[in-house]
Amino acid sequence: MFELLKTTGSARRGRLTLEHGVVETPIFMPIATRGAVKTLGMQDVAKLGAQIILGNTYHFLLRPGLEAMKKMGGFHKLTGWSKPVLTDSGGFQVFSLSKINKTSEEGVEFASHIDGAKVFLSPEASMEMQAALGGDIIMQFDDVASGISTRERYEDAMERSLRWAKRCKESKQDNGQNLFGIVQGGTHEDLRTRSIEGLKGIGFDGYAIGGLSVGEPREDMYRMVEHCCKKLPTDKPRYFMGGGMPEEIVRNVNAGVDMFDCVLPSRNARHGTLFVWKQDPSTIDFRSNPTDFYERYHAGAERHAFEDGPIDPHCDCDTCKTVSRSYLRHLFAVGEAVAERHATIHNIRFYLKLMEELRKSLE
Amino acid sequence: MFELLKTTGSARRGRLTLEHGVVETPIFMPIATRGAVKTLGMQDVAKLGAQIILGNTYHFLLRPGLEAMKKMGGFHKLTGWSKPVLTDSGGFQVFSLSKINKTSEEGVEFASHIDGAKVFLSPEASMEMQAALGGDIIMQFDDVASGISTRERYEDAMERSLRWAKRCKESKQDNGQNLFGIVQGGTHEDLRTRSIEGLKGIGFDGYAIGGLSVGEPREDMYRMVEHCCKKLPTDKPRYFMGGGMPEEIVRNVNAGVDMFDCVLPSRNARHGTLFVWKQDPSTIDFRSNPTDFYERYHAGAERHAFEDGPIDPHCDCDTCKTVSRSYLRHLFAVGEAVAERHATIHNIRFYLKLMEELRKSLE
Repeated sequence: MFELLKTTGSARRGRLTLEHGVVETPIFMPIATRGAVKTLGMQDVAKLGAQIILGNTYHFLLRPGLEAMKKMGGFHKLTGWSKPVLTDSGGFQVFSLSKINKTSEEGVEFASHIDGAKVFLSPEASMEMQAALGGDIIMQFDDVASGISTRERYEDAMERSLRWAKRCKESKQDNGQNLFGIVQGGTHEDLRTRSIEGLKGIGFDGYAIGGLSVGEPREDMYRMVEHCCKKLPTDKPRYFMGGGMPEEIVRNVNAGVDMFDCVLPSRNARHGTLFVWKQDPSTIDFRSNPTDFYERYHAGAERHAFEDGPIDPHCDCDTCKTVSRSYLRHLFAVGEAVAERHATIHNIRFYLKLMEELRKSLE
Repeated sequence: MFELLKTTGSARRGRLTLEHGVVETPIFMPIATRGAVKTLGMQDVAKLGAQIILGNTYHFLLRPGLEAMKKMGGFHKLTGWSKPVLTDSGGFQVFSLSKINKTSEEGVEFASHIDGAKVFLSPEASMEMQAALGGDIIMQFDDVASGISTRERYEDAMERSLRWAKRCKESKQDNGQNLFGIVQGGTHEDLRTRSIEGLKGIGFDGYAIGGLSVGEPREDMYRMVEHCCKKLPTDKPRYFMGGGMPEEIVRNVNAGVDMFDCVLPSRNARHGTLFVWKQDPSTIDFRSNPTDFYERYHAGAERHAFEDGPIDPHCDCDTCKTVSRSYLRHLFAVGEAVAERHATIHNIRFYLKLMEELRKSLE
């Protein structure tokens, strides 16, 4: 399923062959939380060049629910998206979005953030829901400690995540889905090492680095990623969960990560903050300049009211080709919904283009 | 500027030649209130086949304002829309959206519905703002009586609208824009006749039927449209302002109207109500069946949760080609913004297709 094509330093150029298509890595996965990348149609997402997108199990579990999803025939059937999909386990959202009633070794009982309904999620329940969603890659259910936890809490969460990883592997259906384990252990090298050894012992199709980009200092995050990449098997894909800014992606690619997802491009877009290239992206040397290649552009700022050029002259997205700075500024100023769409198209394209250039630089 | 190509009964097939392009009539004009057809980009609007769109002077007067609009260089320059544009005068919104401080023969002083700021609009001010917007067709500033007014109020509003029509004609810049007069007079034939005679005496590039679709019984509306069409000059375009449902458009085309605008397709779409064809629209005989050719489709209804076909198998829009009933139902159910976009694309296409078929039936 994973082919390592070339290694440059610690950075890897690879290829995932999945049921719904081939994914060239390193890759960024736009997030289709509830079955849509916010403000976009699936046609738009395909046109932007996305190779794989992410769906959130937690949200589908609440609406439309397990039985409806089974009846519908899965994420691809429901949304019309035909390329690969990764679903997360629901663990992160249970801990971040909902009110938890009770956490036990068995699983987590929580109140839906929508209507307060009681829902139970466990390794087995997550596997069942992810089977119903039918993603090409599914994630183990894990216990997520917040970014400011004690070592004891990190250790407990890591150990429980390992036990839950085993239960996920054991309860996973034999349906061709690829199951990834999740490395936990906070910002402690030794805990991360134990987590990796435990996961390798169970054996997974890929390994995710979880529990980072959750409030810890950025240098701790980099340190953990570099540590994990040294310990993880080289013949399996590595997925850094939930991060981050463009320079973080570059640095983590250089550390050896293959897959990324993040809400930043779409969330920033909806608030009018766009990422723009400082120079033609094909001319950037990401090894010598891993950080200073982009700027933030505030689309609604008054200073853009009479600028008739494109948002980003180095970008090939529909927004940069058809929407002027003054028009986008006007749309944000008066509050037209399509402003968020135009901005999202650009930011997602920025991230996907970044990955294209990183792949080229590794060839 | 207007060429009457063919008349069938009272219905007309015509052609408007404008600065930004040719418009085949009868035509429906999607509404880009503040410079965007809500939820759509200008690329989308062009792809749907719109030949001309409408911008609202009132909204541009408030934001970005007259001076900013002059500096920007007009609607086309700001939005990137390259085809014809019609701007209304602001009169209707002043009377329907804002709190009026004082109406006099000179004009109307009102409070902005956004921030309460005092704004003054008059025939001369409307002409100046519409010149700044640079639409191909501009409308006279008129006094709009509500749909439940006394004959006296209708008569006063009609007479004042005539005086304001004259001032619009006199103050209009010699810039190639086409100025339309607006027929008022409520639901009274004799007032409508006097209004038309007065406007013809001043002389306009086209004539709009105003003050209808504002709460009066539908049969009164039809009666007035038929009356006006008999009295209006045949060599100028006729524009029915602000209406209506598909069957109203068919009937008013049959009465001799050439141009329409209406918020119904987009507003209904945003609330999940779609117009769908009862049969292949190319097989509808609108003369023998002017009303029973479509149904309302409630996109968010639970009964569509497991329907995997298109919303409307007779429609050629992107939504019907790529979004299933179950997916659109899911998007409305969870509240994804793109649901409104998918629905708007369909409804606008339905109206534009209706006009295409009506034009074909008149050839």
